[in-house]
Amino acid sequence: MLDGMIKMLKDRGVEVAQLAEIVFSLQKPYHSTLTLEECEENVRRVLTKREVQHAVYTGIALDMLAEAGNLPEPLQKIMEQDEPLYGIDEILALSITNVYGSIAMTNFGYLDKTKQGIIGKLNNHEGQIHVFLDDLVASIIASAAARLAHQRHARSYEDSQRDKS
Amino acid sequence: MLDGMIKMLKDRGVEVAQLAEIVFSLQKPYHSTLTLEECEENVRRVLTKREVQHAVYTGIALDMLAEAGNLPEPLQKIMEQDEPLYGIDEILALSITNVYGSIAMTNFGYLDKTKQGIIGKLNNHEGQIHVFLDDLVASIIASAAARLAHQRHARSYEDSQRDKS
Amino acid sequence: MLDGMIKMLKDRGVEVAQLAEIVFSLQKPYHSTLTLEECEENVRRVLTKREVQHAVYTGIALDMLAEAGNLPEPLQKIMEQDEPLYGIDEILALSITNVYGSIAMTNFGYLDKTKQGIIGKLNNHEGQIHVFLDDLVASIIASAAARLAHQRHARSYEDSQRDKS
Amino acid sequence: MLDGMIKMLKDRGVEVAQLAEIVFSLQKPYHSTLTLEECEENVRRVLTKREVQHAVYTGIALDMLAEAGNLPEPLQKIMEQDEPLYGIDEILALSITNVYGSIAMTNFGYLDKTKQGIIGKLNNHEGQIHVFLDDLVASIIASAAARLAHQRHARSYEDSQRDKS
Repeated sequence: MLDGMIKMLKDRGVEVAQLAEIVFSLQKPYHSTLTLEECEENVRRVLTKREVQHAVYTGIALDMLAEAGNLPEPLQKIMEQDEPLYGIDEILALSITNVYGSIAMTNFGYLDKTKQGIIGKLNNHEGQIHVFLDDLVASIIASAAARLAHQRHARSYEDSQRDKS
Repeated sequence: MLDGMIKMLKDRGVEVAQLAEIVFSLQKPYHSTLTLEECEENVRRVLTKREVQHAVYTGIALDMLAEAGNLPEPLQKIMEQDEPLYGIDEILALSITNVYGSIAMTNFGYLDKTKQGIIGKLNNHEGQIHVFLDDLVASIIASAAARLAHQRHARSYEDSQRDKS
Repeated sequence: MLDGMIKMLKDRGVEVAQLAEIVFSLQKPYHSTLTLEECEENVRRVLTKREVQHAVYTGIALDMLAEAGNLPEPLQKIMEQDEPLYGIDEILALSITNVYGSIAMTNFGYLDKTKQGIIGKLNNHEGQIHVFLDDLVASIIASAAARLAHQRHARSYEDSQRDKS
Repeated sequence: MLDGMIKMLKDRGVEVAQLAEIVFSLQKPYHSTLTLEECEENVRRVLTKREVQHAVYTGIALDMLAEAGNLPEPLQKIMEQDEPLYGIDEILALSITNVYGSIAMTNFGYLDKTKQGIIGKLNNHEGQIHVFLDDLVASIIASAAARLAHQRHARSYEDSQRDKS
């Protein structure tokens, strides 16, 4: 299932390594020993979650159907114009970050405004429609960063508790 | 826009009057003077919200594309089987109730389990696919009931404050 | 930490066995081989989650401070009157169910309306204030039921996939 | 009620004008004719919402009780240490942004990471405890910015529709 997921993202122009790089840039300031491998591993773990896969399947399907002009109106026009008040793309994305708690939510908000790396590239598409994919990618990165933060915090928290006893 | 919304629901087998009846059955115990007209008016007000319209457009599009066999895999199979762990339908529905606060959320949960009236009918479809529509309908009813409760509470609360002063 | 959690609930009149009974009544219709032990185990697993513990600590603190008359106004009065439009209790509760997905959300809505067993008892308090605790208890039960459903579904889903191959 | 709200924030070191300034800096790039007055008006409108007031009453009460050392353990210690994995402060804050949709959520995430102006000042407290207040203030700003964006978009959207007909 993970392989299928990674292939589907690749077919739409998104590589796991690109996501891992942004996770790295978000978390490096807090964790000096952080490696790109650890970031990539956290991206992969997020992509194995069933909720994440369902959101990605649904969002990419809507992007592809819009590109082919096969959505019923008025949805087809809304997607073509990337109508700014359409919020279902963010809702799907937030359903992913929800699972990873409030750190994921705030990271998502930050990425959605700063649009680093691949997120900005998807946003400035020509010909292609990525109404859903740019938000999904931002939420996967935000969730991987939150997952990493929780695990590192938990480890150091347990260490500090052990030191006290 | 409201007329288009009502027509789209009707084309999928759902009438505003059917929604109003369930709002009535939910709220009648708390408000003895409640009328069906007041319930119908609250359903209509929910249906004019842009967020609600976007969720309905998107959900019905996915239902129709699944019926026509036009979704990419694995989404097509997930929708055909109404795969129980697929939760994107509930996520779209909860994005509607979110706007109407916690009373709407709890009403939605109740309706999703009890599946009264039209909700149950949509759920036991044959031939047709209503993976999204049954949840959307439940969330519209739950939101209309919450809207009604808030307005009636607010009125009686203001009355009680006025009596005190 | 789990022991402290269980003791804190017990001091406020809530036993794990009472929660497990309601999980059982919710899930028995779907799983004929279900036992009370399995339900109790799922309640315990929910109670070990850090997010759940933080919500319970915060909600019970607010209930106790309100009982002692030690909250600043206007919060003290809102809590004493169990003001129906105060929704922070449901928000804390929904932060627990959020982690367990949409099945937990709908179960919570159902319990919040039907108020079975211990939930109803807490709601009809005299002298004591359980503005937060009744919702927290409902959300712990709803989450344990969802956890159980997910695990049993996942198991049978994997079985069915294995049969196909 | 609005006056009480504004006074309560002022007593904790937060002025409406400080919030309006950050709304201005967030929205000015998109709206060249924006004034500080319009931003302040949007902050005030957010502060009149009952859900917002309830979240602020509850969060400030918890901050004040923690400062006075009056919370039961382990909550007192969690608040004193501003324990990084405690997320109830973000949950209260997100309950405000929820009402204002996904633009509010992403603005909140951005502010929570960049900690501009008064948000950063509250975060670097000495002696005082603002575990809840810094997040609440960020969510009020984010919501006011979203409210402003929605209203300006809606206006220009209606203009563009009118031009077409």
